[in-house]
Amino acid sequence: MKYIVDLNSDIGESFGAYKMGMDDEIMKYVTSVNIACGFHAGDPMVMDLTVKMAKELNVSIGAHPGFPDLMGFGRRKISITPKEAANYIIYQTGAISAFAKFYGLKLQHMKMHGGLYNMVCGDETLATAIVEAMARYDENLILLVLSKSIIVDIACKKGLRVACEVFADRGYNDDGTLVNRALPGAFITDENIVVDRIKRMIIESKVKSVNGKDIDILAHSVCVHGDNQKAVLFAKNLKEGLQKEGIEISPLKEWLK
Amino acid sequence: MKYIVDLNSDIGESFGAYKMGMDDEIMKYVTSVNIACGFHAGDPMVMDLTVKMAKELNVSIGAHPGFPDLMGFGRRKISITPKEAANYIIYQTGAISAFAKFYGLKLQHMKMHGGLYNMVCGDETLATAIVEAMARYDENLILLVLSKSIIVDIACKKGLRVACEVFADRGYNDDGTLVNRALPGAFITDENIVVDRIKRMIIESKVKSVNGKDIDILAHSVCVHGDNQKAVLFAKNLKEGLQKEGIEISPLKEWLK
Amino acid sequence: MKYIVDLNSDIGESFGAYKMGMDDEIMKYVTSVNIACGFHAGDPMVMDLTVKMAKELNVSIGAHPGFPDLMGFGRRKISITPKEAANYIIYQTGAISAFAKFYGLKLQHMKMHGGLYNMVCGDETLATAIVEAMARYDENLILLVLSKSIIVDIACKKGLRVACEVFADRGYNDDGTLVNRALPGAFITDENIVVDRIKRMIIESKVKSVNGKDIDILAHSVCVHGDNQKAVLFAKNLKEGLQKEGIEISPLKEWLK
Amino acid sequence: MKYIVDLNSDIGESFGAYKMGMDDEIMKYVTSVNIACGFHAGDPMVMDLTVKMAKELNVSIGAHPGFPDLMGFGRRKISITPKEAANYIIYQTGAISAFAKFYGLKLQHMKMHGGLYNMVCGDETLATAIVEAMARYDENLILLVLSKSIIVDIACKKGLRVACEVFADRGYNDDGTLVNRALPGAFITDENIVVDRIKRMIIESKVKSVNGKDIDILAHSVCVHGDNQKAVLFAKNLKEGLQKEGIEISPLKEWLK
Repeated sequence: MKYIVDLNSDIGESFGAYKMGMDDEIMKYVTSVNIACGFHAGDPMVMDLTVKMAKELNVSIGAHPGFPDLMGFGRRKISITPKEAANYIIYQTGAISAFAKFYGLKLQHMKMHGGLYNMVCGDETLATAIVEAMARYDENLILLVLSKSIIVDIACKKGLRVACEVFADRGYNDDGTLVNRALPGAFITDENIVVDRIKRMIIESKVKSVNGKDIDILAHSVCVHGDNQKAVLFAKNLKEGLQKEGIEISPLKEWLK
Repeated sequence: MKYIVDLNSDIGESFGAYKMGMDDEIMKYVTSVNIACGFHAGDPMVMDLTVKMAKELNVSIGAHPGFPDLMGFGRRKISITPKEAANYIIYQTGAISAFAKFYGLKLQHMKMHGGLYNMVCGDETLATAIVEAMARYDENLILLVLSKSIIVDIACKKGLRVACEVFADRGYNDDGTLVNRALPGAFITDENIVVDRIKRMIIESKVKSVNGKDIDILAHSVCVHGDNQKAVLFAKNLKEGLQKEGIEISPLKEWLK
Repeated sequence: MKYIVDLNSDIGESFGAYKMGMDDEIMKYVTSVNIACGFHAGDPMVMDLTVKMAKELNVSIGAHPGFPDLMGFGRRKISITPKEAANYIIYQTGAISAFAKFYGLKLQHMKMHGGLYNMVCGDETLATAIVEAMARYDENLILLVLSKSIIVDIACKKGLRVACEVFADRGYNDDGTLVNRALPGAFITDENIVVDRIKRMIIESKVKSVNGKDIDILAHSVCVHGDNQKAVLFAKNLKEGLQKEGIEISPLKEWLK
Repeated sequence: MKYIVDLNSDIGESFGAYKMGMDDEIMKYVTSVNIACGFHAGDPMVMDLTVKMAKELNVSIGAHPGFPDLMGFGRRKISITPKEAANYIIYQTGAISAFAKFYGLKLQHMKMHGGLYNMVCGDETLATAIVEAMARYDENLILLVLSKSIIVDIACKKGLRVACEVFADRGYNDDGTLVNRALPGAFITDENIVVDRIKRMIIESKVKSVNGKDIDILAHSVCVHGDNQKAVLFAKNLKEGLQKEGIEISPLKEWLK
């Protein structure tokens, strides 16, 4: 049996004179990128350059919409209504789609950012509103979300293609949620462990939780970071490590059903 | 010979808790609407409602991108680069396109707003950058711009369909530009004069300038306002006045070559 | 015994081309105004005009800081840190203080807006951080907050002067919080009832809750609205009604200990 | 005769998750800092930290207000009215003053940023409006502006203390304006030349223009950058170089008349 996985990274997070991330470096090692759309990060100039770069490097692109909160980088929860969430996502996905169209590309997927991503994982009403909006807006767009989160089933039932995301460097609770960044076990920094861990997620659909318990997980796409040189090296090692284990690295659109 | 003209109005200019314009009223009398896209006015909730309303009232929709300057309502000139202008337009047009797609519609046209509209009329480099970006982004989008302005020829040469806009209530200088709002002759408030004036623009392609000189003008679309009850009535009277004169009122996409 | 109360209203909520509220009307009937500071509403031009108008009408002024969320008018809760809350309040209070200084005035008080006001009422950590920041920033500034809310005691202990706010047109739960806007009993529209109700709050420090139970309340300042002509009339009637009952209407700084 | 000069640097330009500048490094070598106030850069958290850091390092602080254009970092010209300019400056100066007050400090000066700085140098109406607003807002605030620019005389006549700014690394035109960044001679990178050049500005009030002509200049304060390690080193060398030449480095408030 052949195993396959996508590697994704959040990019295009610069804004005006502010630079963030090593986008050109990380794009050498991932197959899909989530591009910020101007609400929590990114601006039209950055989006244009980012899509252009993704095209040159032949990386699949996705929208990465977030809260309208540049000051908080989209990480803070905002008590928006489900309709507001849906409209914010449509707006931002449309904006990045325009740059894709400009360069003759199509969006592969949509992955929410930060506080919005987290809120949606645990709020059925919000998740439903977003799934319904996406299905009506573009039923071909893959939804990239946290494995085992509440929105996965909702989206599948609605007929959307859903890609389950796992995190290379994060610990999991018994219920499949991520360990809070402030708690012990939140981060996994040993790269040797990481490759084995991700490999097991892909092949066995299991991961050991922070409490040592085996839990179910689906790994269609692994999220890696590109903030600094060390993060980029981590991504490189993960990619090469998985390839050595015989796992193919390929963008979601090539194989996700 | 049969004469035909489009009536357009800027709408969707509310923002959050702030209401602006009598959109539902003015849409009864125009054939095309220019919808604000979130930079100088409008937000995702407003855009959603506006596109929905336009669909229900069967009015053709267009993008109405402006400067990223909500505080100045997009009216102030900002010394952006041609590439910034192009990217701001692509971003905003993409955003409103997404709501059009959501409601099963397509954009008919793009009309710039305020300071951006004015700057483009007199800046060849800016105009060229925008035309080239539009042509690459979507060659089917009609460009709605000031009659006789510098961008008209540039867009025609590039193969874009261009709709020339005239203003029902504004005086013209000898060179075809609008009389500055602070000067005498800037506004025409007598509705009887207005109908005759617009009729002559359509049939004879002429208008009398503020100096009493006959100048050339092309009237594919007449801009009317919907800020208050009086403006709406003005639009109603203009529409009915033109129809009485045998001029057909129809959206650009139905007839513009 | 002589009874005295302050009437306050949120004003200066226009933004750029967007007009909101009948500020010049409502200022005839209140003794204190809470001026938006540019985060959830208001901008430097509006703030300048508003302070100038308050000076001309001899109304006491206060800062009305809110969340940095113009799109949501500061009504949505945002999961900011206590330090962020404190700094947002200092920033905005400083900004409006500058216009006060420009016109030779001093701020009388600070009242938080919308989501921030509501969050602070129920979050001790947040309340403490804000009180400590205020005490350090300006110990003479009166804190205007919801009667019986958690922040009242915290501020008193810190040595701040605290003015307890009541709402003329809102129902109260048994615990002194406001009845949710979506529930029955949230609003009181009968003006005759309102005057009696407020009078009792002032004289007896009691109000009947939505469940018919007498609860304790302190009424140093009554919040009235100035959004529309009806709201302004409501304020006028309340003021005159209370005066007829022998209650003096006077700004906080004149009498609050 | 004893010579004295101030060294200033723009700091506090980070925003939310975006870091900019090596503020803690550059503050070791300058005597005054211009702190961004949230319009073109900076936010309440950054302002709080920056003022705190300046206090610890005993550096004199000033407001550094700019255009409300984070996307353009305040560098783009915006056609605002003189009253808008004045109000934007009062707003921002008030905001940073609040953090100064919080830490028991007072603002020493106000220096405009980017596009606003440049526009004011050549626009008498704008300059007059700003000077009059400053004089009314706080007559003790030193105005730090481009040497020989139009606003210098206007401010002096109004009774404000004016500090003339020179640039260590920039070339000058014959009329005392800076050589456009895109033209040859815009930048001076040889540090040996720089120290001699600044020394001559201070002692002889002369500088050689890009055309080799001696022009008049006043150097109360020298602007240095702290964007990167090289810029910081440049500042360090300039400071030490000037000190070796017997020129005292001291904040404006200590000596400027």
